[in-house]
Amino acid sequence: MVLADIPERLLMGPGPSMVHQRVLDALGKPLVGHLDPAFLSLLDEVQAALRRLFGTDNEMTLPVSGTGSAGMELCLHNLVEEGDEVVVGVNGVFGTRMAELAGRLGAEVHRVEADWGDVIDPAKVAGALAACRSPALVAIVHAETSTGAWQPVEEISGLAHDAGALLLLDTVTSLAGCPVQVDRWGVDASYSGTQKCLSCPPGLSPVTLSPRAMEKVASRRTPLGTWYFDLGLIGAYLGGERVYHHTAPISMIFGLAEALAMVEEEGLEARFDRHCTNHELFIEGARALGLEPLVEEGKRLWMLNSVRVPEGIDETGFRQGLLARHGIEIGPGLGPLAGGVWRVGLMGESSRRSNVERFLSAAAEELGRSY
Amino acid sequence: MVLADIPERLLMGPGPSMVHQRVLDALGKPLVGHLDPAFLSLLDEVQAALRRLFGTDNEMTLPVSGTGSAGMELCLHNLVEEGDEVVVGVNGVFGTRMAELAGRLGAEVHRVEADWGDVIDPAKVAGALAACRSPALVAIVHAETSTGAWQPVEEISGLAHDAGALLLLDTVTSLAGCPVQVDRWGVDASYSGTQKCLSCPPGLSPVTLSPRAMEKVASRRTPLGTWYFDLGLIGAYLGGERVYHHTAPISMIFGLAEALAMVEEEGLEARFDRHCTNHELFIEGARALGLEPLVEEGKRLWMLNSVRVPEGIDETGFRQGLLARHGIEIGPGLGPLAGGVWRVGLMGESSRRSNVERFLSAAAEELGRSY
Repeated sequence: MVLADIPERLLMGPGPSMVHQRVLDALGKPLVGHLDPAFLSLLDEVQAALRRLFGTDNEMTLPVSGTGSAGMELCLHNLVEEGDEVVVGVNGVFGTRMAELAGRLGAEVHRVEADWGDVIDPAKVAGALAACRSPALVAIVHAETSTGAWQPVEEISGLAHDAGALLLLDTVTSLAGCPVQVDRWGVDASYSGTQKCLSCPPGLSPVTLSPRAMEKVASRRTPLGTWYFDLGLIGAYLGGERVYHHTAPISMIFGLAEALAMVEEEGLEARFDRHCTNHELFIEGARALGLEPLVEEGKRLWMLNSVRVPEGIDETGFRQGLLARHGIEIGPGLGPLAGGVWRVGLMGESSRRSNVERFLSAAAEELGRSY
Repeated sequence: MVLADIPERLLMGPGPSMVHQRVLDALGKPLVGHLDPAFLSLLDEVQAALRRLFGTDNEMTLPVSGTGSAGMELCLHNLVEEGDEVVVGVNGVFGTRMAELAGRLGAEVHRVEADWGDVIDPAKVAGALAACRSPALVAIVHAETSTGAWQPVEEISGLAHDAGALLLLDTVTSLAGCPVQVDRWGVDASYSGTQKCLSCPPGLSPVTLSPRAMEKVASRRTPLGTWYFDLGLIGAYLGGERVYHHTAPISMIFGLAEALAMVEEEGLEARFDRHCTNHELFIEGARALGLEPLVEEGKRLWMLNSVRVPEGIDETGFRQGLLARHGIEIGPGLGPLAGGVWRVGLMGESSRRSNVERFLSAAAEELGRSY
């Protein structure tokens, strides 16, 4: 094994983000069993902290045993049935993925498109809903990790509910980095990931579902096509009965518990302010280097910054240089943005003034420009 | 958070097992990205070590990003299509689960039953296959964690192949504790878990699929009903293309890499001998205490021992006493065995002479018997 050869990195890509030593220590704690009273009590605390973070009273709020995409899978498997009409906002990788999975689950998918880097227009969602007979679900991405666009939610939520549909919101990259208000916004289901603004390693997906979403799950016409993501069975483990479903990823839950404790110690407002401030610092410095933001002002995420690759610069070579000579990881563009942008993450522990400065200084050196 | 209140436990239940400090240290190592060349190289090493452990040359051998049940989900989702005839051996919780999931996926499920604690009779499998028009898959459990029964594989494998079916083998509890010979036995797909004899925390499922199984995946008539477990997409990340699919659980892979290194340092034969020896020591001591094995001799697993609850003893009270007064976790019976047996795990790091002695001494005290 080459574990000893794993180098030190400054993680400024689209995730995973840097993980604090306290969380690493929690991960390395000796285990207890998944039915141990002490573990179940910790899991209760984790669920309560996730409710505070999501801004919700939803009983069904839990860390799913898989990465962020597993949370997407759980939500769509439980909420979508064959023949359901599902409206999906598609303006990047993750909306595309929801549309793809909803289609695999037999839904009649109505795609509402926007350019990659732009946000979904509520008027187009209204149009798609009007074209449906009885829409079951509207699904959008709050923070499109593949582009850096920040989607306003409330107007689309109102449209979904007026049409009798549930609203599913991808908060993989937004949660713990900017406000997420599940109850206030009328979000019926949301999934996130631990490796972004929570600064915990990848491997868990915080998920929350409203009572209305759970009614839909309980009144399905067709059986679920999954066992691992069966919310009824998972609920029986999390609820009072504590019926064994699968072995919870104990160590990852330890890490998440510590990460959530750190979020609460910092305070959400202070954490959001930090993400905002370091984003502004980044944009200012990036512009000074000739790196123009992809997303227009007012639509930019604080935690994920896409900047255009300047004319004449080798996209891959720049990233390889940053990694090899400066130990800094950033991300490439995906899909239509491949080769055209770099994605710089300022998520959780990675969102520090010193990291922004280290990136700008290294980027200046690689680009041969002054900063 | 009550993380500081998590007590020390000796884990002798059906999993998770004890985790060595070296593996805990690996889990607590600072992260790198999932597309970092150093991480991809480690992942290659992990895949190679898993091939050696499974006894296979299968290219498609990988740690699935979820617990053992996620491995089951991946195998069945990819290998089963609506209308397929699937023969499932059902003699405990995990055979029951495979039958249930295959049914949810639209398969025509032929259940071959045996008493819980017994093994599946090849003659009954032959009968079930004979009743099929064109069986697609036979699925059995190598080591039934819910009972402690050890299933012989080779005869059933021959029957499956003679009938033109693939063989799926659950090795969640057997892998790294007793011989698993995927290629020699003609197993086409197998899934395991990290939290049993590998002595790594729960959260990954080692899986392997034969070229013949991958042909079936490639020639499916119907689309997959999952995105997270889509082997085609996962293969594009693992293979030369390194296309992003989902963010691999970095820290868990670090832990698995170290656990696999420890397995290879000990050597498979020595490791199996250790599991066998400690099992024999356990059975002898348990009998001396009046704890009779559920499973008859010759069919008993080395790593999971079910013993009958003696007349007049409070099943739950005994386990609670072991946990509260001695810090030892064991498992209860499940399904028809609930209340009737205890399950004592001797898996990986938990399979130590000192642990057997500590359990027997504590059990003697709780039972008020001499040992």
